[in-house]
Amino acid sequence: MSNQNPVFIPGPTNIPDRLRLAMQVQTQDHRAPDFVETFSPVLEDTKKVFGTKEGKIITFPASGTGGWEASVTNTLSPGDSVLVARYGMFSHRWIDLCQRHGLDVRIIECPWGSGAPADKFAEALAADKEHKIRAVLVTHNETATGVRSDIGAVRGAMDASDHPAMLFVDCVSSLASMPFEFDGWGVDIAVSGSQKGFMLATGMAILCVSPKALAAMETAQLPRTFFDFRDMMNANASGGFPYTPPLQLIYGMRESLKMLFEEGLNNVYARHFRLAEGVRKATAAWGLELVAQSPELYSDTVSAIYVPDGFDSNALTDHAFNAYGVSFGIGLGEMNGKAFRIGHLGSLTDVMVLSGLATIEMAMADLDYPIKLGSGVAAAQEYFRTSSATPMQSAA
Amino acid sequence: MSNQNPVFIPGPTNIPDRLRLAMQVQTQDHRAPDFVETFSPVLEDTKKVFGTKEGKIITFPASGTGGWEASVTNTLSPGDSVLVARYGMFSHRWIDLCQRHGLDVRIIECPWGSGAPADKFAEALAADKEHKIRAVLVTHNETATGVRSDIGAVRGAMDASDHPAMLFVDCVSSLASMPFEFDGWGVDIAVSGSQKGFMLATGMAILCVSPKALAAMETAQLPRTFFDFRDMMNANASGGFPYTPPLQLIYGMRESLKMLFEEGLNNVYARHFRLAEGVRKATAAWGLELVAQSPELYSDTVSAIYVPDGFDSNALTDHAFNAYGVSFGIGLGEMNGKAFRIGHLGSLTDVMVLSGLATIEMAMADLDYPIKLGSGVAAAQEYFRTSSATPMQSAA
Amino acid sequence: MSNQNPVFIPGPTNIPDRLRLAMQVQTQDHRAPDFVETFSPVLEDTKKVFGTKEGKIITFPASGTGGWEASVTNTLSPGDSVLVARYGMFSHRWIDLCQRHGLDVRIIECPWGSGAPADKFAEALAADKEHKIRAVLVTHNETATGVRSDIGAVRGAMDASDHPAMLFVDCVSSLASMPFEFDGWGVDIAVSGSQKGFMLATGMAILCVSPKALAAMETAQLPRTFFDFRDMMNANASGGFPYTPPLQLIYGMRESLKMLFEEGLNNVYARHFRLAEGVRKATAAWGLELVAQSPELYSDTVSAIYVPDGFDSNALTDHAFNAYGVSFGIGLGEMNGKAFRIGHLGSLTDVMVLSGLATIEMAMADLDYPIKLGSGVAAAQEYFRTSSATPMQSAA
Amino acid sequence: MSNQNPVFIPGPTNIPDRLRLAMQVQTQDHRAPDFVETFSPVLEDTKKVFGTKEGKIITFPASGTGGWEASVTNTLSPGDSVLVARYGMFSHRWIDLCQRHGLDVRIIECPWGSGAPADKFAEALAADKEHKIRAVLVTHNETATGVRSDIGAVRGAMDASDHPAMLFVDCVSSLASMPFEFDGWGVDIAVSGSQKGFMLATGMAILCVSPKALAAMETAQLPRTFFDFRDMMNANASGGFPYTPPLQLIYGMRESLKMLFEEGLNNVYARHFRLAEGVRKATAAWGLELVAQSPELYSDTVSAIYVPDGFDSNALTDHAFNAYGVSFGIGLGEMNGKAFRIGHLGSLTDVMVLSGLATIEMAMADLDYPIKLGSGVAAAQEYFRTSSATPMQSAA
Repeated sequence: MSNQNPVFIPGPTNIPDRLRLAMQVQTQDHRAPDFVETFSPVLEDTKKVFGTKEGKIITFPASGTGGWEASVTNTLSPGDSVLVARYGMFSHRWIDLCQRHGLDVRIIECPWGSGAPADKFAEALAADKEHKIRAVLVTHNETATGVRSDIGAVRGAMDASDHPAMLFVDCVSSLASMPFEFDGWGVDIAVSGSQKGFMLATGMAILCVSPKALAAMETAQLPRTFFDFRDMMNANASGGFPYTPPLQLIYGMRESLKMLFEEGLNNVYARHFRLAEGVRKATAAWGLELVAQSPELYSDTVSAIYVPDGFDSNALTDHAFNAYGVSFGIGLGEMNGKAFRIGHLGSLTDVMVLSGLATIEMAMADLDYPIKLGSGVAAAQEYFRTSSATPMQSAA
Repeated sequence: MSNQNPVFIPGPTNIPDRLRLAMQVQTQDHRAPDFVETFSPVLEDTKKVFGTKEGKIITFPASGTGGWEASVTNTLSPGDSVLVARYGMFSHRWIDLCQRHGLDVRIIECPWGSGAPADKFAEALAADKEHKIRAVLVTHNETATGVRSDIGAVRGAMDASDHPAMLFVDCVSSLASMPFEFDGWGVDIAVSGSQKGFMLATGMAILCVSPKALAAMETAQLPRTFFDFRDMMNANASGGFPYTPPLQLIYGMRESLKMLFEEGLNNVYARHFRLAEGVRKATAAWGLELVAQSPELYSDTVSAIYVPDGFDSNALTDHAFNAYGVSFGIGLGEMNGKAFRIGHLGSLTDVMVLSGLATIEMAMADLDYPIKLGSGVAAAQEYFRTSSATPMQSAA
Repeated sequence: MSNQNPVFIPGPTNIPDRLRLAMQVQTQDHRAPDFVETFSPVLEDTKKVFGTKEGKIITFPASGTGGWEASVTNTLSPGDSVLVARYGMFSHRWIDLCQRHGLDVRIIECPWGSGAPADKFAEALAADKEHKIRAVLVTHNETATGVRSDIGAVRGAMDASDHPAMLFVDCVSSLASMPFEFDGWGVDIAVSGSQKGFMLATGMAILCVSPKALAAMETAQLPRTFFDFRDMMNANASGGFPYTPPLQLIYGMRESLKMLFEEGLNNVYARHFRLAEGVRKATAAWGLELVAQSPELYSDTVSAIYVPDGFDSNALTDHAFNAYGVSFGIGLGEMNGKAFRIGHLGSLTDVMVLSGLATIEMAMADLDYPIKLGSGVAAAQEYFRTSSATPMQSAA
Repeated sequence: MSNQNPVFIPGPTNIPDRLRLAMQVQTQDHRAPDFVETFSPVLEDTKKVFGTKEGKIITFPASGTGGWEASVTNTLSPGDSVLVARYGMFSHRWIDLCQRHGLDVRIIECPWGSGAPADKFAEALAADKEHKIRAVLVTHNETATGVRSDIGAVRGAMDASDHPAMLFVDCVSSLASMPFEFDGWGVDIAVSGSQKGFMLATGMAILCVSPKALAAMETAQLPRTFFDFRDMMNANASGGFPYTPPLQLIYGMRESLKMLFEEGLNNVYARHFRLAEGVRKATAAWGLELVAQSPELYSDTVSAIYVPDGFDSNALTDHAFNAYGVSFGIGLGEMNGKAFRIGHLGSLTDVMVLSGLATIEMAMADLDYPIKLGSGVAAAQEYFRTSSATPMQSAA
């Protein structure tokens, strides 16, 4: 029924027992008081994870893609301009979604492995004297390349050009794993999901929306019903839902928030940094390179690692799965065949990470990679055992 | 954590243990072979429940409302005409959705408690000489009034007028509980969900789409990405998903189909008829009236029951919940305050139904309804014990 | 995998979701600090349910029968005399166990349906001038007949004759459902189990032992190792176990105690009385008789009900199971064929009880019992709806 | 609620999801046909794991210690002689149990780390001209030292001296993980439990009993009731239990047997050998010594490893738990402080084993052991990746 080994894909993540049990709740009447008393505090507590007091939490029974769609259909009209940089698969897909919805998408092409180019955003915004650009769209953590972008710098560029565009951020694979400052960075819509840092099953898009973005709803002409912010907010105001709510995920979310707060958000972020750093030490020990171009871009939730010239990353991830029953992330888009990915987010311990490193080493050895068995593991062990004076806290 | 009493809302339904366990699956890599081998047969087997060989099954991680939205955005363009009859809350909401998406909605107003008016559809279609009407939208089972419409008769009306419009059917609260003939009735899109007859958690819209509707995709201009049939079909073709799939629901769906086929679809339908008939016997014994206007309209999944003049149905359902911990369906829309509903679909036995009848009797007595304690129960008992020569089969 | 209908056997009882989840804990090292921190408070809190400050809680991974065996092997020697009254299957079995262990068992035969005869105990003890009788053994709640005995009266008889015998009480099917006063009644060993009032899976014998009984350990010559109090107490003293502990049941016990304390023990007892009284009202409405001879003997956890002359209770319980999928208790021992039993203990609501009553009515009608459908249900409904000013509290 | 890391204690073992779900079954009536139909095939299938056609399977809701007790109380009388060798904690405890039950225990003292001394058994049996020795007791897998004894050789010794004693074997920590030949080795009673190779929760003692041992029941004078073979066999004959059965464990056992047979018993044994061999390669790479004195004694389910002189094995296992959240077996009895143990039985993959090796390496490094980080891991990786042409089969 299930593999016993953890998965090392960058989401959905390993679900801890505590959350599997929390999601096992039997059907309840979502129009009854119990649901109201459960749901409203969940919305309130989720704000803390986004780092907001001003923002409004809006959830949909959908995946992150649905969250992207909600962000544009609720705030924009056909023909509106948006500014986006493309530097990976997920920024690419968001661009595609905007184009299909009839938006004028101004694309800044960047090499994969780089992050959001604040300077080029600044140029483009400065050039947009008529303020046609209604929104700047940024992928905080580009899951395909293991790159984290500096959202604060993008906000700085927008402020410098005194441009009124809204700032939309995809934080699907970063929220609840790396620091996020919705208010501090002046984000207008942030889009996340249940199946990454929240360690739950897939099925809930989780958005945070600023008052400015809410105001944009009034004039937005793109059609929407399922993803309509107004219907959801009206229903939520009295603790309800405009249609059948994903009860199990909402109960799961309540417990997930408890787990995150029990560990402490800063400890959660520190743990992700520590696990990621262990993977990076191993990568260096193997003599391999990260796709992320420089340390300030390193993601703490996923590492994309180039295979040596002449090797095929797909053969590696296939072999790891078939020979050892362990799933790693494949190379997506431009990285297909060139890089594999180690997801290290969610409910994970250093012991689990070491098992992933040991596995990929075996797989590499089997395929005659020029690496030494145990070398990456040893580098990560040395880092793990010396990097923390206090006991490793597991998330569960 | 959960009430021990069953719910008698018309969905989401009581989840049997077997499905709760099936949905408890740990995270797996949805790009790995296991998922492919699980998902494709699920799609194939679902066809049997819709009664189709020609249709294509398409699922989305969303609620039934999302399924409605997918049906129109994938096949229609702004300004297209659709024909709909309004005779309850759910037909009303589909109308609203169409209007928000810029369609020309031709509405036939019908009294709540009636069903789809095949004759009036025939008239409207005959009058539409230019074939502007692109689709006829029908709610098979109007959950608000407990009315089942005759889809075959609607198809007959369409055929009689030789009109090329597509036929879209909402079977959210009827599929897998009452007979459905996608091919036989010439349906073009049928929309259902995971949380009713399939006895699962909320979170998956399940559609069946005819070749004719698929062809309409090519010219449809309404924007869509999350709900795009093409993306989903392309990904499904190789066993994948265009974004993160709702893994737990897909494993749940696999087990749900097994349960339905083990019981036998005809036995499932017979069981629902039998449970519904027991509720109707009780209603008669209480001297109360169904909202459904005549026997051929009676739904086998939900009964909406008028409270006597001078009583408030909301007070009744509130009291049943507060005093006895049992949830019944409230009166929706026009029926608010006038009728309560007993959901009797999904994983349910006659024993469970009797507990619901006994409970609502106590609640009615507490509120001084002119009913006799035990009278409805006795009528249902008499029916249950004499209506079946063979042992009652539970769904679990 | 499981029936959806509740069981109405007098244990094991319906396990509430909350406890099923609590028992689903993954393997942990029972020699690690977590286990110690879990187990010791469980032992301490269990005292409250027994009503003791002086007693010691000792558990074994076994059934209640194992608990009986532990009570005698730890305190008695071959040839020791014990005094017991036989008035049902469970008092009978305890007698049998004592005989097999070479004890001199002085049996007072009583009619089934009566309780512990304090007056006859008094006589026997008074006659035992040499104090050969080492222990008086009493079944608090005789599950076979639905009779609760007055333990305080037995203690009174012992005190009146100033006899130093110990008092051993089987409270397997009463503890955590009906009041129990270990200290107040001067009990020396009370034996219970996990699968009745504690609402857990079968597998843990739970004993409470007085200082006097602990002292008797020192001279007891009956052999024992698995059930040795000393080994268990020594290991427990440091939070451990002398062999592998039943981890899942211990975690379940922790949650069970939380549930009992959240509801409040007095409320738990009141709920059991109320449910039992509803069943008794129904029995009277059917014109049937309880096996328990008089009201002060009525058990609040199980009712044994005589079938009319000429009927076979086994046919009734078989039919209820086969035709309706509901389990009732069969007639045991002398009551075989003559009485059926309705268990009404553990995690149960009045709504659930009504479903049991409705079911047995159908089964009786099917077998041509002279009863009126709905009559027992109506009597219980009337009692349930008027007996409590406050909302029914479910145990879960 | 639970650690995410696997445990490496030699039982209870990591419970695979499939079995956790199987054990989550709701209460059912154990007197109903469903239980009968479940339980009888479980008894029958268990024979295959013991390697018997002649033996009778008898289970008790107890731990392995209870199984030991059942083996002697059902077949022996006070004063009977038994022959045992003491070479570890578990042989020691069985001896203690026999002494407490008034048996004449003839003990052959052996160094810890050695196995059952067939030659010395032969001597003792040959010297017992009067055939006073009623049974020879052997621990197949001494969990405290990681030593597997040669049961066939013991049988050979018994046969050589033509001695009629029965042969009792403790296979608690070997059954379903290492080959066992009940019939082939002429075993009379074999004692195991649910929580090791069967991968279930603790709580069921599982015995296999030969016709010869069953015949001994007739004359055995040791008292027993809870553990009485006759009561259990009589009840089992009609699919029942003499008291409340551990329903959840029986359903778990059914699924466990399915899993074992799906993998294939020989594959299960091969997997355990392979995992054990990986641990032994690591041990050698660290320069450490096994407690087991020679390769033919190596256990495939647990390795006991001496720490270097001057180190304390308790400090090591404590540190591994406190710093990394991983449980290893402590040194028991004579090995306390001198050796730690790595359990490698049950539901385990090579990936999981590598995580255990990586963890203990970190712990050793933290405590200044003279070992090189990654060295043991590399040795095991090299072995794992080259030792199997086919994909690693996980048990789940």
